[in-house]
Amino acid sequence: MTPPPVAGGSYVALIGLGSNQGDRPLFIRKALTALAHSTRCRLVAISPLYQSDPVGNPNDPNPYLNAVCRLETDLSARQTLDRLLDIEKSLGRVRRERWGPRTIDLDLLFVGDKIVEESGLTLPHPLATQRSFVLEPATQIDPEFRDPISDSPLHEIRNSLRTRGDWTPLQRLDFPMPQELTSRQEIRQFIQTSREKGQTVGFVPTMGYLHEGHASLLRQARLENDLVILSIYINPLQFGPEEDFEQYPRDKKKDFELARETGTDAILTLSEEPMYSPEHATYVEVKELTDHLCGASRPGHFRGVTTIVTKLFGLVSPDRAYFGQKDAQQAIILRRMTIDLEMNTKIRILPIVRESDGLALSSRNVYLDEKQRQEALGLHRSLLRAQELVASGERCTETIDSAVRDILNTCDGAQIDYIGLVDSQTLQPVERLERETLLALAVHFGRTRLIDNTLLTPLA
Amino acid sequence: MTPPPVAGGSYVALIGLGSNQGDRPLFIRKALTALAHSTRCRLVAISPLYQSDPVGNPNDPNPYLNAVCRLETDLSARQTLDRLLDIEKSLGRVRRERWGPRTIDLDLLFVGDKIVEESGLTLPHPLATQRSFVLEPATQIDPEFRDPISDSPLHEIRNSLRTRGDWTPLQRLDFPMPQELTSRQEIRQFIQTSREKGQTVGFVPTMGYLHEGHASLLRQARLENDLVILSIYINPLQFGPEEDFEQYPRDKKKDFELARETGTDAILTLSEEPMYSPEHATYVEVKELTDHLCGASRPGHFRGVTTIVTKLFGLVSPDRAYFGQKDAQQAIILRRMTIDLEMNTKIRILPIVRESDGLALSSRNVYLDEKQRQEALGLHRSLLRAQELVASGERCTETIDSAVRDILNTCDGAQIDYIGLVDSQTLQPVERLERETLLALAVHFGRTRLIDNTLLTPLA
Repeated sequence: MTPPPVAGGSYVALIGLGSNQGDRPLFIRKALTALAHSTRCRLVAISPLYQSDPVGNPNDPNPYLNAVCRLETDLSARQTLDRLLDIEKSLGRVRRERWGPRTIDLDLLFVGDKIVEESGLTLPHPLATQRSFVLEPATQIDPEFRDPISDSPLHEIRNSLRTRGDWTPLQRLDFPMPQELTSRQEIRQFIQTSREKGQTVGFVPTMGYLHEGHASLLRQARLENDLVILSIYINPLQFGPEEDFEQYPRDKKKDFELARETGTDAILTLSEEPMYSPEHATYVEVKELTDHLCGASRPGHFRGVTTIVTKLFGLVSPDRAYFGQKDAQQAIILRRMTIDLEMNTKIRILPIVRESDGLALSSRNVYLDEKQRQEALGLHRSLLRAQELVASGERCTETIDSAVRDILNTCDGAQIDYIGLVDSQTLQPVERLERETLLALAVHFGRTRLIDNTLLTPLA
Repeated sequence: MTPPPVAGGSYVALIGLGSNQGDRPLFIRKALTALAHSTRCRLVAISPLYQSDPVGNPNDPNPYLNAVCRLETDLSARQTLDRLLDIEKSLGRVRRERWGPRTIDLDLLFVGDKIVEESGLTLPHPLATQRSFVLEPATQIDPEFRDPISDSPLHEIRNSLRTRGDWTPLQRLDFPMPQELTSRQEIRQFIQTSREKGQTVGFVPTMGYLHEGHASLLRQARLENDLVILSIYINPLQFGPEEDFEQYPRDKKKDFELARETGTDAILTLSEEPMYSPEHATYVEVKELTDHLCGASRPGHFRGVTTIVTKLFGLVSPDRAYFGQKDAQQAIILRRMTIDLEMNTKIRILPIVRESDGLALSSRNVYLDEKQRQEALGLHRSLLRAQELVASGERCTETIDSAVRDILNTCDGAQIDYIGLVDSQTLQPVERLERETLLALAVHFGRTRLIDNTLLTPLA
């Protein structure tokens, strides 16, 4: 996947992070959190953590922990550097001795293709193409990035460095396996301990069988919180009687591995206790917003979702919870719910993640046979077609609906459940595109129901 | 009101509390909290706080803060004394110097009519009948308690002491006026600050027009928590279209005064912001339990209650919330809701508070004219009659229902809404009394609807 294009006037900056003192992963994480929250900056990628032997300073035996991140920003190079110095300072770094121990070390490696030689600011950073502990993580996130001096992509420079052999051994530091929380008592204790330390909690509720879409939520949660909790629970309450509750795919081992890779701290499975007691009688319902689209096709579905999410929020008390834009209606309903019920959880919605051919990732994609998988690409094609129409000035939703329908009708075996063109806030049907409008699709391929959507924004 | 009778084998103990160092009201409050949570003890009354000049010690210029509380316990006098010493110790008191400053001083003044003279334990306490800073607060909570030595009630001893003039001036220390929380931001900030200090929060949600029933909730909350928050909000969502939302009585000034007297820290009024936004669409519903009794007579009422309570819990994040047994069905529904939605709030239900003639306190009693007020006593009479029948062996709920109905039918102007004999957990109608059964009544007097109830427990 390519990251979204950088908006006009923005640069890609690669930033090196290092720490050789104290709780090193925590310092790197805190610096990344600060960058992620920095205005006019967008943190789009983070490398794994690497450990390297200390370089240069014979008096300092501590190994360094290193990472590189990719930032998009419309700040100037100088302003970006000042941000980095501010973050170092806020994390207790004193730039005094050349070889002093470093709680955190932030280096501006590259800012686009800029070549700068000013007081205190050299671009590219003099060590950016010299050190494997920079090049190794940088290559992981942006292998094709070109060093503006040699005009070579990073992966080539990294390889040539490796052959020259002047690098210190690297050790990739993996995150530890997340702790499984199997009972309410374990959950509450985990949360209680984190609260007492003043830690923030990011939460990603899922039904398991994780894919890159879930991973994107976990990575964002990792950026923005001290603790990341994932829940895996296939919630019977949100399945209709004819739906796929029984067959819903499961792969606990793979889920745990993906969670570990993204730096998840704990996984709530509640495997030792029933989620709903036999006396359970309480339901959370959002009216109106649930009448349309999937709400109309799947009666009771959203009541199941809002009820389980309320329960999970009760257990986890998250500061932020992460959901995908793929379930667009769910996202709007959950935002409404948290506001209406005064919940202390911010709902964060992240973009749809697609396969390289455009198919939106979904745990249910495993149900598709090869032919269906191919035909299902029509969903994304029809969304692109709608985008195209809107870009060329079309405002009539009936026309857009027809164009989408025409494409879906060419997909062999596709049965359209709905094509919705609705207000992106109220979900009320829209006749003319005057503001942001949600185009949402649900299409059956055999017994498999796929959904996809896009936001249509008429430009003035 | 008389406190409930002391169970067999229990004693009434009067305990003096004093502090002349540090945050004195906090130390006294903490000691009271420890007593309230002590096993085999029931804290039933606390005097106001009094301030007295230091007595005896010329080197200590700090005034003392004093209070007396009444404990019911089946511990021995020696065991009770040990509890007090433990609490002193846990609050940092070191019993070393006779005149040293005292963060907290707990004295066992009286244990029933016991007269004891042992090593370290003298009952009554030698100063119990000598010091006005003991007798004044003790008289406030138990004026008829008799000193076992003189066999005189405390108020007489206090008066004779006063005439002898050997007491230091007393100053009654009132609690400060509670802080009004008028916006969400104010509420969240207040809660945030308390959380950072690790304080526990007790919450009493009301519709205002407070009476002694509410006061009993606030006092219990004061005992069990570091902070007490009251909310006053007349929730339109729980009133039917034909009900008394518009006329519901209001008296903000009196409410604030009562809240102050009970030691409430803050009052949530949210007067600057709407409680429900125009887009509000989320409702919390408890099924089944809401089908009976008031749920049947007042459709939508409990949905309104569970929704507003969820919102208020979201705003306040209380550790404990206090409700009256008078709304028996509401209590059961809210317990169910907090369990089902994994809320981190413990629901505490306190006994019905009645006027001396038996009428259950209710804000709606002001609607009654003098004649109706008199006829309304039939509710309590009919409950007592049912108790009597059960005590004499009656198990058939039809018979009990008839007896209750007969009494209510003698009340001029009474229109029975329902007489319910239901399982006290499930609220399902019961035919034979085999375990704890709720007898609940709703009766109209003119436009005023009164409810009352009692628990019937068949003894083997």
